[in-house]
Amino acid sequence: MTNHVTIHKGLEGIAVTDTQLSLVDGEKGHLVYRGHWAKELALKYTYEHVAFLLWHGRLPSDDELRAFREQMVEARFLPAYLKAILDQLPKNMDMMSVLRTAVSALGDDSYGWPPTVEQAMAVTAKVPTIIAYRYRRLNGQEPLEPRRDLSHTANYLYMLFGKEPSPAHVSALDAYLILTAEHGMNASTFSARVTTSTRSDLISAVTSAIGTMKGPLHGGAPSEVDETLAAIGTKENAEPYLRSLLERGERIMGFGHRVYKTRDPRAEALAVVAKRVAGDDPWLDLAVHVEEVAIKLLAEYKPGRKLYTNVEFYAAAVLRAVGLPKELYTPTFTLSRMAGWTAHVLEQAADNRLIRPQSVYTGPMPEGEA
Amino acid sequence: MTNHVTIHKGLEGIAVTDTQLSLVDGEKGHLVYRGHWAKELALKYTYEHVAFLLWHGRLPSDDELRAFREQMVEARFLPAYLKAILDQLPKNMDMMSVLRTAVSALGDDSYGWPPTVEQAMAVTAKVPTIIAYRYRRLNGQEPLEPRRDLSHTANYLYMLFGKEPSPAHVSALDAYLILTAEHGMNASTFSARVTTSTRSDLISAVTSAIGTMKGPLHGGAPSEVDETLAAIGTKENAEPYLRSLLERGERIMGFGHRVYKTRDPRAEALAVVAKRVAGDDPWLDLAVHVEEVAIKLLAEYKPGRKLYTNVEFYAAAVLRAVGLPKELYTPTFTLSRMAGWTAHVLEQAADNRLIRPQSVYTGPMPEGEA
Repeated sequence: MTNHVTIHKGLEGIAVTDTQLSLVDGEKGHLVYRGHWAKELALKYTYEHVAFLLWHGRLPSDDELRAFREQMVEARFLPAYLKAILDQLPKNMDMMSVLRTAVSALGDDSYGWPPTVEQAMAVTAKVPTIIAYRYRRLNGQEPLEPRRDLSHTANYLYMLFGKEPSPAHVSALDAYLILTAEHGMNASTFSARVTTSTRSDLISAVTSAIGTMKGPLHGGAPSEVDETLAAIGTKENAEPYLRSLLERGERIMGFGHRVYKTRDPRAEALAVVAKRVAGDDPWLDLAVHVEEVAIKLLAEYKPGRKLYTNVEFYAAAVLRAVGLPKELYTPTFTLSRMAGWTAHVLEQAADNRLIRPQSVYTGPMPEGEA
Repeated sequence: MTNHVTIHKGLEGIAVTDTQLSLVDGEKGHLVYRGHWAKELALKYTYEHVAFLLWHGRLPSDDELRAFREQMVEARFLPAYLKAILDQLPKNMDMMSVLRTAVSALGDDSYGWPPTVEQAMAVTAKVPTIIAYRYRRLNGQEPLEPRRDLSHTANYLYMLFGKEPSPAHVSALDAYLILTAEHGMNASTFSARVTTSTRSDLISAVTSAIGTMKGPLHGGAPSEVDETLAAIGTKENAEPYLRSLLERGERIMGFGHRVYKTRDPRAEALAVVAKRVAGDDPWLDLAVHVEEVAIKLLAEYKPGRKLYTNVEFYAAAVLRAVGLPKELYTPTFTLSRMAGWTAHVLEQAADNRLIRPQSVYTGPMPEGEA
């Protein structure tokens, strides 16, 4: 049956849509969000700016930003029924499954067709609150209400840990959230667009995306780099540790990328931020040093291989520096990607076509007449 | 930017996988599940047989079927926490959103990788219980526990309406559930496979599929035909009603199909079942008559157009006959498709490749250096 049909199992190289949202150019090391270098956005703006940019197509004016922040702040608070549901979910449920369920539970009839920026904002604003609520409950701590005076990023850290985070930590995590907010087409974003393509609602689409991001092949959460940084522990240990890895022929996690064939622009931006605030945080300080040593040793052991620092390297450093436990790495990546997913939902809805591919039957045929 | 890239917006004509699960041949009017005519399965077997077939690749022996039924019966019962969650969900939440949330809430750590038949069975068995629980609560009735002595289909009707359904209704609904259990590639099935492709879990995949099926472009729920049947009401009214539709140049809903260019095999099978039990149910009796009249009138008004009865026609008749209210049509279609979706999840996992297409950036480029 398969004779004359090409099967595109992973849809590799198949373009499924044009998009105004982002350009990922791995050859050139370019990452563009709606006409802006992502790197520049991460160094100059906040997550709220970038969410506005992705949803509206341009950066906000000062007045627009003020109004936008206020709306997002009001949308942070969870309805009582959602807290009750979070309390009911079994303890042996990982945070991504909790997030998928809680976001789905927000889907009342206010999320009608077509999806809107208000809907995108309402759910994006609540994701940090959901994570922090569940995290504190599981740790036997009373969940905290969101604070109105803190930014999206600062409030997330506050709700998790119960104290106002340092400016160094806020700026490092904010840069991470901006740089991972959007990344062209990928499995989770695509699943959101497939769901939207039936004219289903924004909550359904985001729920699909969260479930898809949960899989370990999705990539993005820097767990392995984190282990390397933790194992190195101190600056003095960096060179002997990495040298011994290379002597044994092992990889240094955090260097080299499937897409970027040059320096990953996200790593570049995070490196700048890390260097800015490294004096204020021992893990960022260590990461800056480890990168220097790794680049030097890779040139020595693998000359000509061009193994550049990837986003996972500094992501791990940032997430560890701000005090996030490893089980919150993928949920925090989810939190960042909310702006990108919902922007794709809006874009898909604005020029929709049902996404309905084909399959080729290779099973047996029945005997006899149909 | 788009000069040299073809964009496949709806993935029309793009085959994304081979499959052993089903063949949909619209030209020939063929629907095959794993080497069996779906029509024959609907006339000779039960939903449990067909779920076993889709999951295991062959029909069960009598002993296997007995053990399988027992396992599915035990899996029908909802954990207490899920009932509490169903009670918490807001009233202004449609049943598909409830189902998406409740299925997601089942996703504890027993749903690890790889997905298994046991997992597929556990969630498939619970979907009718979830729908019936919520339906009765919303109607101010006490939810009923599943009965162990009834089949999957009979127990669903029992849990909804609180009385044992007639054999005619069970066989008609069972045939509908079998005939809509699987249908090759389509948006919801594809979304389940995209989610699975990251090695995410079976619950995540089914949650994506439910959210995708929710959209009105997905198709499958026969609401419009239902309105026609309700408006006709009696046999005497069939010919004048349909004639007046055709005189005004309007369509008769339930005739003609996007995929099937000949008689839809699902409609054929449901017609056989409907005729078998028509004497026991006024709506099925009416449907059989309406089909005859419609075919006669279509030949008169649209000669040569070959507008055959489609599955929606008899689906509407069956769903109305068994007493389902319209808001349960798509949820009941979901219930039937559980076997097909989960079979696709198992198939995708067995030979997995990450599904990651591309997009083409058409937005502006930033000024200045990256």
